[in-house]
Amino acid sequence: MQNINEDTITQAVIASLARCDRPRLRTIMTSLVQHLHAFARDVALTEDEWAQAIAFLTEVGHITDDKRQEFILLSDTLGLSMLVTTQNNVKPSNCTEATVFGPFFVEGSPVYQNGDDISNGAHGAPCYVSGQIRGVGGEPIPFAHLDVWQSDEDGFYDVQTPDASGETVMRARGRLTTDEHGRFHFRSILAEAYPIPHDGPVGRMLAATGRHPWRPAHLHFMIAAPGFETLVTHVFRNGDPYLDSDVVFGVRSTLIADWIEHAPGTAPDGTRFDAPWYSLDFDFVLNAGAA
Amino acid sequence: MQNINEDTITQAVIASLARCDRPRLRTIMTSLVQHLHAFARDVALTEDEWAQAIAFLTEVGHITDDKRQEFILLSDTLGLSMLVTTQNNVKPSNCTEATVFGPFFVEGSPVYQNGDDISNGAHGAPCYVSGQIRGVGGEPIPFAHLDVWQSDEDGFYDVQTPDASGETVMRARGRLTTDEHGRFHFRSILAEAYPIPHDGPVGRMLAATGRHPWRPAHLHFMIAAPGFETLVTHVFRNGDPYLDSDVVFGVRSTLIADWIEHAPGTAPDGTRFDAPWYSLDFDFVLNAGAA
Ligand SMILES: [Fe+2]
Ligand SMILES: [Fe+2]
Repeated sequence: MQNINEDTITQAVIASLARCDRPRLRTIMTSLVQHLHAFARDVALTEDEWAQAIAFLTEVGHITDDKRQEFILLSDTLGLSMLVTTQNNVKPSNCTEATVFGPFFVEGSPVYQNGDDISNGAHGAPCYVSGQIRGVGGEPIPFAHLDVWQSDEDGFYDVQTPDASGETVMRARGRLTTDEHGRFHFRSILAEAYPIPHDGPVGRMLAATGRHPWRPAHLHFMIAAPGFETLVTHVFRNGDPYLDSDVVFGVRSTLIADWIEHAPGTAPDGTRFDAPWYSLDFDFVLNAGAA
Repeated sequence: MQNINEDTITQAVIASLARCDRPRLRTIMTSLVQHLHAFARDVALTEDEWAQAIAFLTEVGHITDDKRQEFILLSDTLGLSMLVTTQNNVKPSNCTEATVFGPFFVEGSPVYQNGDDISNGAHGAPCYVSGQIRGVGGEPIPFAHLDVWQSDEDGFYDVQTPDASGETVMRARGRLTTDEHGRFHFRSILAEAYPIPHDGPVGRMLAATGRHPWRPAHLHFMIAAPGFETLVTHVFRNGDPYLDSDVVFGVRSTLIADWIEHAPGTAPDGTRFDAPWYSLDFDFVLNAGAA
């Protein structure tokens, strides 16, 4: 410890963890230090680059508040979120795959009944969404809880567009429960592609590295039922130009589905649409496990 | 990109950098992604651990302001700062070695003359500091600029103890210039060991990993002269109990020196000390290069 140099520093830091009495934390910190140091060595990180990294992280911290989580955007855009999602959601092949959670989920969103319109005034082409939740053996899962959330036609989530008083009106998000046959259906608006918030340091990073900030159109689902693993996923809209370049690397081909366009008319549940409307029918298969 | 999984995600992120027209940035980002993902894979990072990491970094960001830089503390305590310092300061063996910059430097600190007392009211045992700045060939460097900064006897830097109105009075820090023989001397107070600020997330990380927050007593120097590489270093006080466990891994044996205790009396420059006082004499050797 009195002869720290470029070669001895990593072992010195790892040795400093010798009195850590939480084995998992010690494992994580040891690996973190090894990889962090290996990165700095591999690129021969300069003092000026280090200072730029400190300034960048400081800016990420300062733009983050209870409405905007720039650290999650950073993790998402570096593919870390999707890696963590995939390595923690290995399951039988007929289960619906998971994808990133994203920063726009809100606790306690409005409760709706099947058939309700969850848009609550959000702008966009009308859309009818239906599907069934099943277990791996094909059995329907009655009374499963679905959280649904999405952006509006301008590419904004409700939390990004507070009203004049700063309050968020929850729009195009809600909680539903499947019926006794594991089925759900609701009205909302058409999911549209959108850029992640890119007026901050993560947006600058994307621009500097030649990347666009767009995500292909998608509808978020979080589905929970007793005796099953909670599923956090999206359904992606087939044909979207960003399916091959999702800025957060969330696309899985099994999650791509067709939104079908219809002339004005009546939805399967009798809802009358006076303008052109879309429908999405998508079934989800949950893995057995703890909820 | 439509079949992202645990195995393909890293290559997908690297491929997204294909249009980055800044080669150095692309190199750094590519390596960062590889090492970040390798870390997450090696420890099989869970979603809950990922969420804890996001919350930790958010807290680091929120406690950071223009007076407190928790990201630098994080980098320092993980040994990253010292690694970057050492790998960027390889020089001839008779040059004075560099060590971490730390978070307590202040631009525009008071200018003093040789012989002045830079403590400016900071509390601590009186100390007389002298030395010579030389080049690699032994030649004195006249009119070199020295920035000196240190903590007081309670272990605080002036920036940590603003007055009642929130203003910082600069104490125990200052700028000096060597004389025509490359020599400097000034009065200050005895450098004492101190804990880095540990009431925030970095302090919690240290406690959770069984580490103390202390740095051995040291005096900071930044020395600049035309035609020489600027030297950022400390002099550490011999005998300090934390020399073997500096929380930021900054100790190099060549930077340890004796502070000699004296009975009340007269310093080499004629300064009269009526109480016991200490002296430190330390010479610095700068590498040739751009200032
Ligand atoms: Fe989204
Ligand atoms: Fe210090």
